[in-house]
Amino acid sequence: MTKPIYVLNGPNLNRLGTREPRIYGSATLADVEAMCRAELPDRPIEFRQSNHEGQLVEWVHEAIDFGAGIVINPAAYTFTSIALLDALKMFEGPIIEVHLSNIHRRESYYHHSYVSKVATGVIAGLGADGYRFALRAVSNALA
Amino acid sequence: MTKPIYVLNGPNLNRLGTREPRIYGSATLADVEAMCRAELPDRPIEFRQSNHEGQLVEWVHEAIDFGAGIVINPAAYTFTSIALLDALKMFEGPIIEVHLSNIHRRESYYHHSYVSKVATGVIAGLGADGYRFALRAVSNALA
Amino acid sequence: MTKPIYVLNGPNLNRLGTREPRIYGSATLADVEAMCRAELPDRPIEFRQSNHEGQLVEWVHEAIDFGAGIVINPAAYTFTSIALLDALKMFEGPIIEVHLSNIHRRESYYHHSYVSKVATGVIAGLGADGYRFALRAVSNALA
Amino acid sequence: MTKPIYVLNGPNLNRLGTREPRIYGSATLADVEAMCRAELPDRPIEFRQSNHEGQLVEWVHEAIDFGAGIVINPAAYTFTSIALLDALKMFEGPIIEVHLSNIHRRESYYHHSYVSKVATGVIAGLGADGYRFALRAVSNALA
Amino acid sequence: MTKPIYVLNGPNLNRLGTREPRIYGSATLADVEAMCRAELPDRPIEFRQSNHEGQLVEWVHEAIDFGAGIVINPAAYTFTSIALLDALKMFEGPIIEVHLSNIHRRESYYHHSYVSKVATGVIAGLGADGYRFALRAVSNALA
Amino acid sequence: MTKPIYVLNGPNLNRLGTREPRIYGSATLADVEAMCRAELPDRPIEFRQSNHEGQLVEWVHEAIDFGAGIVINPAAYTFTSIALLDALKMFEGPIIEVHLSNIHRRESYYHHSYVSKVATGVIAGLGADGYRFALRAVSNALA
Amino acid sequence: MTKPIYVLNGPNLNRLGTREPRIYGSATLADVEAMCRAELPDRPIEFRQSNHEGQLVEWVHEAIDFGAGIVINPAAYTFTSIALLDALKMFEGPIIEVHLSNIHRRESYYHHSYVSKVATGVIAGLGADGYRFALRAVSNALA
Amino acid sequence: MTKPIYVLNGPNLNRLGTREPRIYGSATLADVEAMCRAELPDRPIEFRQSNHEGQLVEWVHEAIDFGAGIVINPAAYTFTSIALLDALKMFEGPIIEVHLSNIHRRESYYHHSYVSKVATGVIAGLGADGYRFALRAVSNALA
Amino acid sequence: MTKPIYVLNGPNLNRLGTREPRIYGSATLADVEAMCRAELPDRPIEFRQSNHEGQLVEWVHEAIDFGAGIVINPAAYTFTSIALLDALKMFEGPIIEVHLSNIHRRESYYHHSYVSKVATGVIAGLGADGYRFALRAVSNALA
Amino acid sequence: MTKPIYVLNGPNLNRLGTREPRIYGSATLADVEAMCRAELPDRPIEFRQSNHEGQLVEWVHEAIDFGAGIVINPAAYTFTSIALLDALKMFEGPIIEVHLSNIHRRESYYHHSYVSKVATGVIAGLGADGYRFALRAVSNALA
Amino acid sequence: MTKPIYVLNGPNLNRLGTREPRIYGSATLADVEAMCRAELPDRPIEFRQSNHEGQLVEWVHEAIDFGAGIVINPAAYTFTSIALLDALKMFEGPIIEVHLSNIHRRESYYHHSYVSKVATGVIAGLGADGYRFALRAVSNALA
Amino acid sequence: MTKPIYVLNGPNLNRLGTREPRIYGSATLADVEAMCRAELPDRPIEFRQSNHEGQLVEWVHEAIDFGAGIVINPAAYTFTSIALLDALKMFEGPIIEVHLSNIHRRESYYHHSYVSKVATGVIAGLGADGYRFALRAVSNALA
Repeated sequence: MTKPIYVLNGPNLNRLGTREPRIYGSATLADVEAMCRAELPDRPIEFRQSNHEGQLVEWVHEAIDFGAGIVINPAAYTFTSIALLDALKMFEGPIIEVHLSNIHRRESYYHHSYVSKVATGVIAGLGADGYRFALRAVSNALA
Repeated sequence: MTKPIYVLNGPNLNRLGTREPRIYGSATLADVEAMCRAELPDRPIEFRQSNHEGQLVEWVHEAIDFGAGIVINPAAYTFTSIALLDALKMFEGPIIEVHLSNIHRRESYYHHSYVSKVATGVIAGLGADGYRFALRAVSNALA
Repeated sequence: MTKPIYVLNGPNLNRLGTREPRIYGSATLADVEAMCRAELPDRPIEFRQSNHEGQLVEWVHEAIDFGAGIVINPAAYTFTSIALLDALKMFEGPIIEVHLSNIHRRESYYHHSYVSKVATGVIAGLGADGYRFALRAVSNALA
Repeated sequence: MTKPIYVLNGPNLNRLGTREPRIYGSATLADVEAMCRAELPDRPIEFRQSNHEGQLVEWVHEAIDFGAGIVINPAAYTFTSIALLDALKMFEGPIIEVHLSNIHRRESYYHHSYVSKVATGVIAGLGADGYRFALRAVSNALA
Repeated sequence: MTKPIYVLNGPNLNRLGTREPRIYGSATLADVEAMCRAELPDRPIEFRQSNHEGQLVEWVHEAIDFGAGIVINPAAYTFTSIALLDALKMFEGPIIEVHLSNIHRRESYYHHSYVSKVATGVIAGLGADGYRFALRAVSNALA
Repeated sequence: MTKPIYVLNGPNLNRLGTREPRIYGSATLADVEAMCRAELPDRPIEFRQSNHEGQLVEWVHEAIDFGAGIVINPAAYTFTSIALLDALKMFEGPIIEVHLSNIHRRESYYHHSYVSKVATGVIAGLGADGYRFALRAVSNALA
Repeated sequence: MTKPIYVLNGPNLNRLGTREPRIYGSATLADVEAMCRAELPDRPIEFRQSNHEGQLVEWVHEAIDFGAGIVINPAAYTFTSIALLDALKMFEGPIIEVHLSNIHRRESYYHHSYVSKVATGVIAGLGADGYRFALRAVSNALA
Repeated sequence: MTKPIYVLNGPNLNRLGTREPRIYGSATLADVEAMCRAELPDRPIEFRQSNHEGQLVEWVHEAIDFGAGIVINPAAYTFTSIALLDALKMFEGPIIEVHLSNIHRRESYYHHSYVSKVATGVIAGLGADGYRFALRAVSNALA
Repeated sequence: MTKPIYVLNGPNLNRLGTREPRIYGSATLADVEAMCRAELPDRPIEFRQSNHEGQLVEWVHEAIDFGAGIVINPAAYTFTSIALLDALKMFEGPIIEVHLSNIHRRESYYHHSYVSKVATGVIAGLGADGYRFALRAVSNALA
Repeated sequence: MTKPIYVLNGPNLNRLGTREPRIYGSATLADVEAMCRAELPDRPIEFRQSNHEGQLVEWVHEAIDFGAGIVINPAAYTFTSIALLDALKMFEGPIIEVHLSNIHRRESYYHHSYVSKVATGVIAGLGADGYRFALRAVSNALA
Repeated sequence: MTKPIYVLNGPNLNRLGTREPRIYGSATLADVEAMCRAELPDRPIEFRQSNHEGQLVEWVHEAIDFGAGIVINPAAYTFTSIALLDALKMFEGPIIEVHLSNIHRRESYYHHSYVSKVATGVIAGLGADGYRFALRAVSNALA
Repeated sequence: MTKPIYVLNGPNLNRLGTREPRIYGSATLADVEAMCRAELPDRPIEFRQSNHEGQLVEWVHEAIDFGAGIVINPAAYTFTSIALLDALKMFEGPIIEVHLSNIHRRESYYHHSYVSKVATGVIAGLGADGYRFALRAVSNALA
């Protein structure tokens, strides 16, 4: 059976579509999930969101046991969570970090990413398309 | 119907009255809640406390949907939580950040506040009175 | 006889109402003085303004000899005057630092306050109401 | 009745034995727990693990009420959690911080420990033996 | 007539396939060019490489006059060229910055990107696929 | 009636001609004043000097009420006075900052200028000619 | 025969008039050249522009052999080129550094100038007039 | 006629004897003046105190014209006044900087002295004796 | 024959028992030596103390030739001696760094340890027990 | 056939003998070239100079294809060129970095060398002899 | 019997009179010793010099057992020796730190003094007179 | 009689050949001494090694009295000894600093050299050949 790709979303992303639409666009997280499933129709996708750092850490643990790849938009935890970094270090498949906006154009505390230190690749600023490219990249890496 | 003001309290504040009383005073959080309700008897108040960053983020989301203003004592998350900063950015009403002690007189890692970057105002060092002034300020802003 | 509370105002505050009204509001310093006197009608208030660092230092000396409490909006000297910090260190009553705007949302050279290191409490971003809360806090502390 | 020693473990330690075994060894957390109980057979031990910062804060609160000492391996929260630091400040018994690896030989973001500022002692790099020495040290301090 | 997309490549990329293949892969720049043309067969592509900062600046000028979008892998000039940043600021269409490797996993002087401050989006660590996703993103933005 | 241009000079400039002549030249401040009046014979010029930060702040206030433009050599207050910066922010006409020497060639504490953040333009290192060019620039801006 | 003054212009200045006109104005570089020639009609002027750091270095070499003074707007190379600094150190005549905008009001990476360390004087923020004043200053220095 | 030695005292020193006596001792400034006059009975002494930076600058100007040496306790202006540094640079006789307390044992913003950069010598932590040694040192230098 | 463990003690430790007893306890170094010998009665122990950096370096050289493990309390040289770090790098057996106090709770210049970069493990804040645990850890590693 | 050693010289070195002779000596680059050829008469030497960063990068590419070793005096590009660093990383033979002056005795922006991170060895401050020693070192390494 | 004052001199001071006489004067260390003995003829003085950090530490130990006060010119160890700082912390009498030159006017690595953190007072820049004043200050403190 | 050249070696170099041979090679210090004597057979050479900073300082003193030049490999003291820097400042002949490895490719605390600030030249990364080139350079300088 094909192992799923985990698409993990961090804090505040459940508000997508209402949060600072000038920066993040008007698509909701459900829209993003639909786009993801459409992009790789033959691959099971575990699409999750949590505002809790510990929950995200545990989903990474689940992905270590059951997943083929990880696409992760850690949102604010990108910049503060060494726990997430430690969890991702244990994952052996491809990891793609996605940001809806180009974090390097924003305030300086959005510039330093712990997750980037362990990610295979990073996509930022392409909006919801970033998720699609990330899934495609994971899929290619697994091929 | 009048929309409530959310009074949100961060980690360790459930121990108020026992925690370092030299710095924080001997009033308990229940005492503070009573003072708050007495200050604005005609305005519903959602008074909450959590030690979980993710829970505080979600209460801010709730306030975005249902609240008129926010008074927040983020305690330790003041200094480490970009997730809380991101959540508060979505709130359009007045936000007052309260600290029981004057954080600028303490160790240096208590000096930098993420929440201050999005708060309307900041009150520090006035003990439990700080909550009362904050509620008054929110009330004035909503008048 | 009741000892007065000194309300000291730093440089450029004589221009209040005309200075960057988007940030500081349209009330003049005379309006603020009137609000202060109305807030504590039974307490004498020494309400002063100077653009000179040395003058402010000397008014703090005067408060040490004759005053019960200090409310101070040091404006630009907040960020540059160790002389004012040294003077305030000698004062034994309550000291409340007030800023009309939330200094933490502005340019970085408005973030570091010498006065905060010695103030009992700090109120920022509440406009002229900040003075009223500060006087109330001093009054409570003296009660 | 003898008060227990709390042995608290932070994020990702539930994966011990599988996580980067070159650094952390092959013993599982259950193995560590067994070693701990064997080291102090006459002393009750509350052995816990959580990936949630808020949960760890609350277990420290529990230890304040019921515990004699704390041995804590805060893992990633060592470096990022002021909330944990604030909680531990309220504990009056001995606190020993344990790290399986020598954190000073690793990447620089593993060097700065908030917990060390309040710990009685620190043991790093001795693998699971570190827990045993820590329990012994707490026991000596309580003797 | 359809305006072309400029795909600009910076210093040392003419050696692609031989340069540190562990990091950059074994595809040559000609291979990358072929992949780019295959990705968007209906869109003219100006595919260029130079080791000269001034030449890259001038090609950006050309793109300002004649191009619809820019995909740029500035290589070492990413980190040192304010001239390139100034040139790209004048371009009004979409700009995607591409890096073959994940620059955030490498030495610290590969972390700071001037180009990111003006790019619409950034893709790093996806090898030659990064170019394809970038072209797709530019194409979507122009649609 | 033509509004005057204020030419304001900061601390120690009353000693011009004797102060470190290798750096500042041998012209006195009276010589500079004469040059200024000769440069714009048809425009009234308020030429002032003070060693007091507060006095300079108040002359800027006067210029806000009565002046058309400001040429200012803040001398040492360039580097330390946020009060002067705050005052100049209220002025709506052209402001030219002048330094007799090229401050960037001197000790590092002469490099950072608060005044430059609000000045229209800056002229440094051209000696007394700098005042003439500054007046000419203000005059052009007012034309 | 009178030795010429070299007026050297750095990267992107060939786009003057179109580049961020809000900051740099609408005059083209040809307009600036005409103004320069009009300002000193009796002095030959070598007016040059290049986007190549090496070319600018070589024109400084030419000026060392044949020129009387240098007016230089190094644009982006102001902030990054030690090579240009090294070349200018060899020039014995007057050097005036010109910037169209006040670089100290812009992003921080536009604040540090290598060229200022060797320039006789600096003029910033006066637009194209800056060139005229610079030429006048060189002319005065040569008189 | 013998030229006087100027003994200049900065802000808050008029409160000597009452200000933080644990740090500064119980002698008043008048006591210090008497000690100074007793130390060098044959040398006229201009003993001054001001809380105004500008006044201190002007007394240094006076000393340049009429004084043989300077003993200066700049108090808070030690750490913030470049204007005082600039004035002292013009003085050609011996300058001794005195501090009653050892400033290096206090908070970090009391560590950096602008005046030390131009002082002949520095004496700190010897209380009022420091003035006597300073006068003796100036006297020796003038002998 | 069993190779000895070297227990090396740095500067000022010969004063143990008299030096800041609030921090370091009242046991003398002879007491510590006795405890060490009692802990591992079957293992020869070379117990040494020196105030000389060079002597400690040479004892590490001796341990390289003759020793099985090193327990080292480098005291002040922990923070300043790269020579000791270089010497320890050559040692192939286990190295445990011991500090009597928790150095992370003290002044900041006691925080950075060169020795930690090469130590197998670190024990701090457990007083003389730290030596016993360290010897036990070395013994376990050699078993 | 013996592969040549490339001796590459960076910006401004074509002016050697005239540039700051107090620092760099009076030998011209032609003199240095003659010394180099005399030092290794049996080894072909490609002796080049350019003021263009891109040109130096391309000569390193040429050396990768045809050269046995590289001696490089990158002059100002030492401190600013990551492009040169990237190019040199691809070279597998010995690389010796040469500086005529001891760069560590000069201004701080001459201290940080990118090239040193990849060079086999560095020689600074020995004037033109440095080239000779460097060639000798390359020759030894190739022997 | 009167306890002696220890006058301790650090590295290179045995060369006094020959070492950089422009900075340190022409008196030899024997001359300084004679001046010291003449200053306090009734007090025994232990006058020592060593180039060894460990030796100086041990002399401080001796002073702890037998001395009344310490005058110390730690020379280079001022800036690098935490061992000396630790030793001096154990001394309970007055400690005066002396420097022949004003260290704050020299290179920046001569600015930071570890010894100042524990010294009663500091005298710098008064040449050999500094020793005399220091002995006088110790004598006064012991009176 | 010809004055000798002092070849001084710092801490741990007595272990050369065994210390991290991957970095330092397998030649012993005796081998290096033999190479040195062979390089300059007609010049007496004082070849010394010490692990003691104070001893190295005193050998520099000896060289000041009797030596013609100094070749010094200060090893770890390169990075920490201001005492050695102070001693070398007094030496008037040529000083060449030698490092066996290229210190700029190693950990960052091996990058900053105090000795380089006073050395005539620096040679790093050429192994034992560095000593030979250094002696040759000293010999040339003395010719």
